[in-house]
Amino acid sequence: MSTAEELDAIGVDRLRAAGSLKWSVFPDAIGAFVAEMDFPLAPAVADAVKGAVDRGLTGYLPSAVRERMSEAAARWQRDRYGWDVTADQIRPVPDVLTALRATIDFFTAPGSKIVLPTPAYMPFLTIPAMHDREIVEVPMLVKDGRHVYDLDGIDRALADGGGLLILCNPYNPLGRVFERAELEAVAEVVERHGARVFSDEIHAPLVFAPHRHVPYASISPATAAHTITAASASKAWNLPGLKAALVILTNDADVQTWARPEVAWAEHGTANLGVVATTAAFDEGREWLAGTLDYLDGNRRLLGELLAEHIPAMGYRAPEGTYIAWLDARDLGIDGSPADFFREHAGVAMTDGIACGAAGEGFLRFILATPRPIIEQAVRQMAAALREHAAG
Amino acid sequence: MSTAEELDAIGVDRLRAAGSLKWSVFPDAIGAFVAEMDFPLAPAVADAVKGAVDRGLTGYLPSAVRERMSEAAARWQRDRYGWDVTADQIRPVPDVLTALRATIDFFTAPGSKIVLPTPAYMPFLTIPAMHDREIVEVPMLVKDGRHVYDLDGIDRALADGGGLLILCNPYNPLGRVFERAELEAVAEVVERHGARVFSDEIHAPLVFAPHRHVPYASISPATAAHTITAASASKAWNLPGLKAALVILTNDADVQTWARPEVAWAEHGTANLGVVATTAAFDEGREWLAGTLDYLDGNRRLLGELLAEHIPAMGYRAPEGTYIAWLDARDLGIDGSPADFFREHAGVAMTDGIACGAAGEGFLRFILATPRPIIEQAVRQMAAALREHAAG
Repeated sequence: MSTAEELDAIGVDRLRAAGSLKWSVFPDAIGAFVAEMDFPLAPAVADAVKGAVDRGLTGYLPSAVRERMSEAAARWQRDRYGWDVTADQIRPVPDVLTALRATIDFFTAPGSKIVLPTPAYMPFLTIPAMHDREIVEVPMLVKDGRHVYDLDGIDRALADGGGLLILCNPYNPLGRVFERAELEAVAEVVERHGARVFSDEIHAPLVFAPHRHVPYASISPATAAHTITAASASKAWNLPGLKAALVILTNDADVQTWARPEVAWAEHGTANLGVVATTAAFDEGREWLAGTLDYLDGNRRLLGELLAEHIPAMGYRAPEGTYIAWLDARDLGIDGSPADFFREHAGVAMTDGIACGAAGEGFLRFILATPRPIIEQAVRQMAAALREHAAG
Repeated sequence: MSTAEELDAIGVDRLRAAGSLKWSVFPDAIGAFVAEMDFPLAPAVADAVKGAVDRGLTGYLPSAVRERMSEAAARWQRDRYGWDVTADQIRPVPDVLTALRATIDFFTAPGSKIVLPTPAYMPFLTIPAMHDREIVEVPMLVKDGRHVYDLDGIDRALADGGGLLILCNPYNPLGRVFERAELEAVAEVVERHGARVFSDEIHAPLVFAPHRHVPYASISPATAAHTITAASASKAWNLPGLKAALVILTNDADVQTWARPEVAWAEHGTANLGVVATTAAFDEGREWLAGTLDYLDGNRRLLGELLAEHIPAMGYRAPEGTYIAWLDARDLGIDGSPADFFREHAGVAMTDGIACGAAGEGFLRFILATPRPIIEQAVRQMAAALREHAAG
């Protein structure tokens, strides 16, 4: 693990030169719009991938390599969350969206609606249409300053033809880490309607104390029976481009359905080097993750301090998990898209909340997994743009 | 490029230890069933992948990285086959099968049949059923010892509701490299019916002189208008597990169709390190490929000599392209599956021709991309098993 000083020292020029998506789409703006980490890879992960290249492990994915990833993922779930799942319940997929598409196609009733709490991870809003499925957006509520599920809204949506509820925990973009009691309350609503749940838990390794990740499918036999869980090392170890993630199946019927060739096709694109990287991350990347979480913990606090000092009208509550900050820009006096405003006038590229659903209008999604001086520079540039805007 | 002596020296133990699919599925048999190469990676390819890991290029696929692959593929098509396609006609996909699935879904009439010359690459026989599409197998004919298309058979199949003809050139598993006149004759039949062609050309870099690869879509405006071409570095540089290939679109309507989000989804699983590897292969892997083709050329001749000496009743014609040998085992006096026989009695694992369609019954698919001493050992073990069988 790099020290905090080493991470602080990573400058914009170096990130720009490395050529990530985050630092290449807007060549003149600070990249804070896509959920990527700006830190060097965990050495254990980099070594595992380079070792696989040296061994020539570039042919078709060998079963043993695939199984080692499922075993590492099972160990991770057990050690980290106390969840006993076996390797044969854990199947490889290239990414969480492929898992969602398979879930819609093969684990929900034809034509049933997709119930989506919002604001949501952007592709969750566009994928259902590719399956000719209607989305019912259920905006999250705010209670004592924290986002909570609108259980009545979910209840109504499921009553009105909803077949699948998409959960995201830890929650992208809101940063919530749901407590067991909250998940139990969701489960009760889902069970009332005999619906299914797709639980996106790919941010689970990224949780800040005292919060703890509780796998939704682990809380009761009912949730095990109605849930398809997606897990991944892609967020915490920054591997989305290597194309490996995991589906956790928690009942026999789903295991049998998954075994059908047209369903198991979802595994097809899983890439060798992603599998090798994921295995190394779960087994050998734990200390690196602890150090990274420490740094990110500092980042989420720093952003709060900076905003309080320079842009006090910007709403922000530090995320409980994920490295995604959800900023409330509604009181800044900006007409139109706040993301457009800050990209054009502050040189800071964020995701407009509207891309996360109607509930996100007036909000911004800012990625915290960047060196602290860059966070400071971003906030200063945003504050300056607002001052100029107010003066204009 | 390793010397022939270095490749010859790669032993079974080393291959087994490296853990490829080819050498791990049947721990007691020589692996000759899956189209993988047993040679070390091209150094330029390995270096490119390791360099990307060092740069931390593991986040979402950056546009510039993706575009460099399309540009390298365009240079390859131009330099190698004299085909002028531009980078913006070339789209990334994880693999040829993903390209085929997108072609079936979005470029053919709903419910139209898939016309498949056989014996065929095995997944071509199973994928149409996932789309609720009927396959019409059109067995290849033999003319002067060479496999040729059954133009009348294709004509009848297209007349009988066929909407898509799947071509494979160079031909897996038959090793044919089709001449321009042959492709022109196919095009005439296709045009007669207004059908579409999916042209799998992923073996194109693997052609032995004096044969030359002619891209099907390049031969006329008509073929450019009715073809979706799949290209890849995965076969010639042994990269199938890295998940990157290319679709070449050769008319405006297809480019527009491809741009629709549900169609362009086919690009989604393309993996960064596969893209980097493919780019390096096309641009910097040419000398390595020339050396590898020399070695493979020796292998295809060696197999002929060994069979003539030890198993003269086995039918074999050296492939014109690919590293796949198609063996006619019908006169060996084996009851049932020849692949089962040789796996059980000779310790040589090959694909049974029947997996390539009914036309493949009695044949075997043997992968030649292996050190020569292993080819010799395989043939000796097969000959010994036949002697014992005859004696028994």
